[in-house]
Amino acid sequence: VRRLVEDEMLERIRRALGGGIEPNGLRDDAAVVGVPGGGSLVVSIDSVVAGVHVDLTLCSPADVGWKALMGAVSDLAAMGARPVGALVALCVPPATGEGELTLGVMEGVAEASRQSGCAVVGGDLSAGGVLTVVVTVMGTVDGGRAVERAGAVPGDAVFVTGPCGGSAAGLRVLRGRHERGQDETGRDETGQERSLAAAYRRPEARLAEGEVARRAGAHAMIDISDGLALDLHRLADASGVGFALDTIPVAEGATLEEALGGGEDYELIVAIDPRQVDNYIMRCTSAGLRPPLQIGVIRADTGARYLGGEELGRLGWQHAIG
Amino acid sequence: VRRLVEDEMLERIRRALGGGIEPNGLRDDAAVVGVPGGGSLVVSIDSVVAGVHVDLTLCSPADVGWKALMGAVSDLAAMGARPVGALVALCVPPATGEGELTLGVMEGVAEASRQSGCAVVGGDLSAGGVLTVVVTVMGTVDGGRAVERAGAVPGDAVFVTGPCGGSAAGLRVLRGRHERGQDETGRDETGQERSLAAAYRRPEARLAEGEVARRAGAHAMIDISDGLALDLHRLADASGVGFALDTIPVAEGATLEEALGGGEDYELIVAIDPRQVDNYIMRCTSAGLRPPLQIGVIRADTGARYLGGEELGRLGWQHAIG
Repeated sequence: VRRLVEDEMLERIRRALGGGIEPNGLRDDAAVVGVPGGGSLVVSIDSVVAGVHVDLTLCSPADVGWKALMGAVSDLAAMGARPVGALVALCVPPATGEGELTLGVMEGVAEASRQSGCAVVGGDLSAGGVLTVVVTVMGTVDGGRAVERAGAVPGDAVFVTGPCGGSAAGLRVLRGRHERGQDETGRDETGQERSLAAAYRRPEARLAEGEVARRAGAHAMIDISDGLALDLHRLADASGVGFALDTIPVAEGATLEEALGGGEDYELIVAIDPRQVDNYIMRCTSAGLRPPLQIGVIRADTGARYLGGEELGRLGWQHAIG
Repeated sequence: VRRLVEDEMLERIRRALGGGIEPNGLRDDAAVVGVPGGGSLVVSIDSVVAGVHVDLTLCSPADVGWKALMGAVSDLAAMGARPVGALVALCVPPATGEGELTLGVMEGVAEASRQSGCAVVGGDLSAGGVLTVVVTVMGTVDGGRAVERAGAVPGDAVFVTGPCGGSAAGLRVLRGRHERGQDETGRDETGQERSLAAAYRRPEARLAEGEVARRAGAHAMIDISDGLALDLHRLADASGVGFALDTIPVAEGATLEEALGGGEDYELIVAIDPRQVDNYIMRCTSAGLRPPLQIGVIRADTGARYLGGEELGRLGWQHAIG
């Protein structure tokens, strides 16, 4: 049996099911649905499974709750949307300490909810085989148009909202400390280790950055959840274009490989008309945001996927499906 | 460590977390949120975990997908809402046949989606420890008011939209056949066995029934997901009232115990002003629905919880949390 990777499986589900499943829902970061009253809502669902997306020996239950909510909120950021609310389903393995685990996860969910301004409006609690947190988020673009993956056109400037690889480097640092049996409380951590660990445990969705890019007329956006390279390939696939990158901003303490293939940084990739670039950067500055970093340009040839003249692989995280 | 049941745990989460978590979201079948454009949306999230909520030796993957979507849609029915759309997160254990399992579940999701008129607008696919399907549903009451659990008042007539216990009886029949090693294809099933098995494997949300009850002015509603007795106790708890039942409609082939304590029938319990009863029944008939069955009345004394003069326990399904 040939194993399919996630993107291929989604394509197969779309083809096999047709009616009853909206084709766009499984493709973009989030779907846009018409709602009563004539408005529209940006909606997305996202899962965090212990042992698959997160390692419970390196994260507290509250970190897991935080990462689950922020990961979903990041899908709103990638559409240029503002949060309206979230629903959280928590499946906890039945065992001693299950109550504390449940409360710990929900504490992290509540912290991320306050930080992102995304209220938790509903939830479901259930026994499960492994700790699983599924979050649905709803957002709004205030009557504007949500920014999809598919809008990039040849000549667009490609930006990233910040340096990448911090989360992957944090995971590496935490794994190293754990394997060496170092102080679990992290009291002997260096400042850089601490900030990389925080990048892994407490990432933040770029909501303000996404909204500014949308208002500046961004053609296409995606959040870096699985790796800068893989997520940029996805944006290019959806848009039917290629790209040529000349530089990759690497987070302090991270490697170039981590910046390209490490997920969960939640920085945004933005494709925008080159004539809008000055306006875009000015809007970022006025909003008090870090200036976005141009990493390359969009090319017409969909097969052209380059970094510094070399072909760039689909580096990043996908699970195989058999 | 004392083990808490689900309802107590939800209460503890609400108390512990406060800010950032909307208190109603974890209490009612669904939450009502204001959306862009001035309208409101009824939203709910629900989980189905293999081995906890569903037995994969008795159900096909498509049955699991169907049950997951219908169970969530039933929360909309219980508020008197019409579906707007659903989001589906699927966690599948990584193993050989995972691709077929994924497609099978999504096929059942698509069938239930067509049957209920609830389009799947988005999804997420992930590896997981055990098969887990989490469904978020969104619905509308067309500018009306969603019917909550908390509105029952003394003197209200209590109705149920149909006979109960069919799903629990179906589970019993399927378990019996499985234990006796009987034909898995069900070719030797009697007609009654077949219809009870279908009640378990392919339950249907009472969307039309919920909408008619809302338009007829129902004070309070809940769907029977965990047992007629337990869910009626929840409605009474939320409303601060008691009840006196005089009859329980039992599905053909089911026992009284299955009708009281068996979940997943998805019939609705409706509390309504006695002066509206004729109007309510007439509306059901005009809509081509089965006539609802009166089972008792709401009492002012919150401690009064009777069936035929005897105290009625909280029969039904809750998982314990340690």
